[in-house]
Amino acid sequence: MTGDVQLIGLDWGTSNLRAYLYDTQGRIVDTRHQQWGVRQLPDGGFPAAMRAITSGWPPCVTIAAGMVGSRQGWVEVPYVDVPVEITTIAQGLHRVDTHTRQAIWIVPGLRQREPANVMRGEETQIIGVLALQTTRGSHAHLVLPGTHSKWVTTENHRVTAFQTFMTGEMYSLMLKHSILGAGIPEEQDQPFPNTVFMRGVQRAKESDSKGAWSQLFSTRAMMLNGELASDDVAEFLSGLLIGEEFRVARSSGVYDTNVQLCIIGDASLCHRYATAAEHFGYASPSIVSDATSYGLWELARQSGLLAQASVHPFSGVKA
Amino acid sequence: MTGDVQLIGLDWGTSNLRAYLYDTQGRIVDTRHQQWGVRQLPDGGFPAAMRAITSGWPPCVTIAAGMVGSRQGWVEVPYVDVPVEITTIAQGLHRVDTHTRQAIWIVPGLRQREPANVMRGEETQIIGVLALQTTRGSHAHLVLPGTHSKWVTTENHRVTAFQTFMTGEMYSLMLKHSILGAGIPEEQDQPFPNTVFMRGVQRAKESDSKGAWSQLFSTRAMMLNGELASDDVAEFLSGLLIGEEFRVARSSGVYDTNVQLCIIGDASLCHRYATAAEHFGYASPSIVSDATSYGLWELARQSGLLAQASVHPFSGVKA
Repeated sequence: MTGDVQLIGLDWGTSNLRAYLYDTQGRIVDTRHQQWGVRQLPDGGFPAAMRAITSGWPPCVTIAAGMVGSRQGWVEVPYVDVPVEITTIAQGLHRVDTHTRQAIWIVPGLRQREPANVMRGEETQIIGVLALQTTRGSHAHLVLPGTHSKWVTTENHRVTAFQTFMTGEMYSLMLKHSILGAGIPEEQDQPFPNTVFMRGVQRAKESDSKGAWSQLFSTRAMMLNGELASDDVAEFLSGLLIGEEFRVARSSGVYDTNVQLCIIGDASLCHRYATAAEHFGYASPSIVSDATSYGLWELARQSGLLAQASVHPFSGVKA
Repeated sequence: MTGDVQLIGLDWGTSNLRAYLYDTQGRIVDTRHQQWGVRQLPDGGFPAAMRAITSGWPPCVTIAAGMVGSRQGWVEVPYVDVPVEITTIAQGLHRVDTHTRQAIWIVPGLRQREPANVMRGEETQIIGVLALQTTRGSHAHLVLPGTHSKWVTTENHRVTAFQTFMTGEMYSLMLKHSILGAGIPEEQDQPFPNTVFMRGVQRAKESDSKGAWSQLFSTRAMMLNGELASDDVAEFLSGLLIGEEFRVARSSGVYDTNVQLCIIGDASLCHRYATAAEHFGYASPSIVSDATSYGLWELARQSGLLAQASVHPFSGVKA
């Protein structure tokens, strides 16, 4: 590593902390990862985690996104309300004095008043994707699968509205704690796309206005009847719950099938969503992984932190 | 107690074991309760639990319903398929040799092939209610709230079809393990009917074809926004999930609002369901508690066990 680095970006969630070191062109020159999410910090808490994960890197302006800005985080950073321009989010960066030479700027989450909704971390992925211009046209529908899946509408670099599905969290709760997980094997690597997954997606689609949640118990009954092997319960459930997102999204009238979806996140999970999307009549979606690293750079750039950094690299500007 | 007793009935579920001692007229002369469900048996297992809970009672013909007849129970008793006459269920009683003077007869559960569904224990409550003739007309719609709520259609003493909602199990999983339960107080006794519960019911009703499950995360967002007190999250969630049962039931077209509902089970839970039912346009439902004890007697009567018992009280008839 040389002195040509300009920014440290932290993707700081509930379970994981990822650090990116950028050069002056925004290229990533080093990355690190620790399981130091805000719920499982090392001794010394946030400052110690930040020192340790950046140790040996030159001191740089540092920007962080995710649950680090939540009530359980380092500092609670107020939400910014949608609809909102990307530039407004960039202006909302919140400086935390770390009592070291290294100040840290935390990205605000987004809030929707009605229907009530919040996000923290996904806004940075969205900004990364919009900066990459991977979506066609001025409107884009973004899907961010995960513990709490987000469906987001954007328009000309504004985030206009979003919705949250607790798909990932409910899926793992059901397998771990409910009757549906009783007597089924530990999670296995299944070849994918899997016909059992598609049976679940199809079941959600057919459930129509009743919705796939009313079909949950039938998963158990199908297993008892021998219609569904116990090895297949997890895949079926995955298809049922992901299919339910598409059923609701389509029936809401917001996400019409003639606007291309962009699916953002872990590659294998995005692949599941893309498969379900096509089953529901959406054109083949684009997929973006690692959007957070682009978003952190873009936010630093739009907020003016990079320009200032090149003049006063470690002087705690904007304090 | 005198010698005028004729039957012992056991309501043997996952978590609890209840025993009833009946006289020759079917009146209950003694009841007992232990937390000896099939998942938490005392040393010595099923036979020991049965001996202990009936100790001191005269040996009698014994009939048991519930999870005791499941794969995890004493003996797995085959399901009987719906549509089915009550008399056919009575003929399906399964004799278990207990190696004591006291044989035990286990009630079969019911199975529906398409859509796949099963019940164990609720069939006995249904039979009890039909015997009590608390429902008007030849058609009746029965609702059995609980861990796995059942909605059942009956016609002239036949069970024609049923549906299961995992409402109770999901409610407690979410409060115990999901983000929705984070930072909210332990369950409290709330005065009921409660306006917060009704807000949840109304939210489910308004969710329309999207369904209430798509609104789950907004419960969290409303709490973060100050629109919902942390003390109220559990009540709101209860309303949302119970309301969702009614939304789905009504949209399925099966449970029309001009057929009276009969709600069967724990009195305070039934009261919640009755309140939600009226909000969805159903006429004031009838409520029956303790239906299992009536059903056990009725099954023993219809199967001929009582008649035989009076001739050969402890001779292991029908072996």
